[in-house]
Amino acid sequence: MIHILCANPALDRTIYVQAFYPNGVTRSSASHEGLGGKGFNVALPFIVTNEQKTIHMHTFFGGPVGEQLAQMMKNAQLAGETTFIEGDNRYCTILVNESKQEAALINEQGPSITEKEQQQFLQSLFCSLKAGDHLVLSGSLPKGTPLTFYRDIIAQAESRGVQTILDSSGDALAYGAEAKPWLIKINGEEFLDLMGVKEEAANRQQQIEESLKNSPYPNCIVTLGGEGTVAKINGDIWRVTLPTINVTNATASGDIFLGTFIREWRKTNDVKAALLAGSALSLANCLHWLPTIDFAQAEQYQQKIHIERVGSAV
Amino acid sequence: MIHILCANPALDRTIYVQAFYPNGVTRSSASHEGLGGKGFNVALPFIVTNEQKTIHMHTFFGGPVGEQLAQMMKNAQLAGETTFIEGDNRYCTILVNESKQEAALINEQGPSITEKEQQQFLQSLFCSLKAGDHLVLSGSLPKGTPLTFYRDIIAQAESRGVQTILDSSGDALAYGAEAKPWLIKINGEEFLDLMGVKEEAANRQQQIEESLKNSPYPNCIVTLGGEGTVAKINGDIWRVTLPTINVTNATASGDIFLGTFIREWRKTNDVKAALLAGSALSLANCLHWLPTIDFAQAEQYQQKIHIERVGSAV
Repeated sequence: MIHILCANPALDRTIYVQAFYPNGVTRSSASHEGLGGKGFNVALPFIVTNEQKTIHMHTFFGGPVGEQLAQMMKNAQLAGETTFIEGDNRYCTILVNESKQEAALINEQGPSITEKEQQQFLQSLFCSLKAGDHLVLSGSLPKGTPLTFYRDIIAQAESRGVQTILDSSGDALAYGAEAKPWLIKINGEEFLDLMGVKEEAANRQQQIEESLKNSPYPNCIVTLGGEGTVAKINGDIWRVTLPTINVTNATASGDIFLGTFIREWRKTNDVKAALLAGSALSLANCLHWLPTIDFAQAEQYQQKIHIERVGSAV
Repeated sequence: MIHILCANPALDRTIYVQAFYPNGVTRSSASHEGLGGKGFNVALPFIVTNEQKTIHMHTFFGGPVGEQLAQMMKNAQLAGETTFIEGDNRYCTILVNESKQEAALINEQGPSITEKEQQQFLQSLFCSLKAGDHLVLSGSLPKGTPLTFYRDIIAQAESRGVQTILDSSGDALAYGAEAKPWLIKINGEEFLDLMGVKEEAANRQQQIEESLKNSPYPNCIVTLGGEGTVAKINGDIWRVTLPTINVTNATASGDIFLGTFIREWRKTNDVKAALLAGSALSLANCLHWLPTIDFAQAEQYQQKIHIERVGSAV
């Protein structure tokens, strides 16, 4: 089973406008609502392939927005443990300016989680985790939780034979990494920061590959945006080179990459296939305004994505 | 009893940001939710003065947003007739850029009302109207309703001894005006348009005063933004001159004016007092990001608002 922790879910509201007046009245042409928050985006590849039964969500819902999210989760046939909270879930507004082809993401903070709610959440999480499972910890920490929230979960889960995957940023990432998760997904800047290495722009990819060899983390996927990806998996260093595309909206691309990677990995144990599938679907997602899994587009990209093993860890 | 028809209610979401990135990620500092739609703004002066019992709302609610609006209406102790609809109510997003002191209103269209829902609505409306009541028809028409929706309501209500007040725009206004409502609230441009008069910028206020004298509408309030207001009430022509202020957000000012005018009128039958109270509260509202009734600020303005009778209708 793959467990996905979505600590700060959101009702994603995409509002389409033909023009935007920052100090006046704008009329929208259409709007769309979706189940948001990084964890739910990680779940997308499983929903589209009708493999919801292989994943299990862990999240906090509260208030009228939480009720809507619970209904959306049900409609998507996603099972999981929900901790009901006093606070209201947040909205994320995506303002798509169609004539300018721009998308503005306006992220709200989300509710504060009380200590009692955290305890309830942790209890149901650990009741549900079993040795051999994977656990994805995705996104920022909600208000009210300690900076060590992910770290403590990772440590306890790993000690029970669960392979943990951390995809966060800032303090949540730095503390979480301390517990040595099975896999860290991280961008280039944060990786060098975590390794205490000063970035040299001219030599960035090579620098990251070298640092990866020496990193204390068992497995690491370092994303470099359009430049591609560098990864250390099972002692091998991999380099993924991507074709150039015209990005419409990159939102959720990293999450779709991760969900697809884990899905493929659990099935085949084939690193290269998992990196390829993840890269292709995350590229295809960039062509859409809304988070989208497009297998046809991804297949076209697969031939243009170059993946090679460039070394091994020390 | 004052009846207020709010045909296209909205969940007003005000999102505060320190800076806005039209093609990137913006983090909001706070957000606020309110019961929106022009009719509910007209109700504000009655809510703040705890006079909800003198008004009766008529509206359409549907979907999860409709449930939230119904709860907000209950919390505000507003009674009324609600027609529950298949469609989902809309959001209006107000994006306040605090550092630039700008507010962007993003208005969504709202749901389509089926013919059956319209029939239900009209039946409950006419069961509830009594001779001597006032009926305010505020805002745009929802999708699905005919352009004659307000016109037919006005004609039937007036024939039953109800005094109707129309505050709309475009076709809904043009058709509605045909039925000769007791009072029309309208801006200068639309008034001249309705009268078939070509606007002369240099002489606008005088031109409107002359047109008002000859207008076929029994009572008319013509708003001219910062220039003030010209009104024909009971055969007299009134001119309201406003002090200059620094506007923060003028949203709902017209509705607050109208609600206050009707409230004062029903109590005192004193035109000048009603125009003064409405003007002062609508000015004070312009100093706030959210629709706000501020009696203390309004009192300060009252001395600076000049109201004179400038003539009488032909």
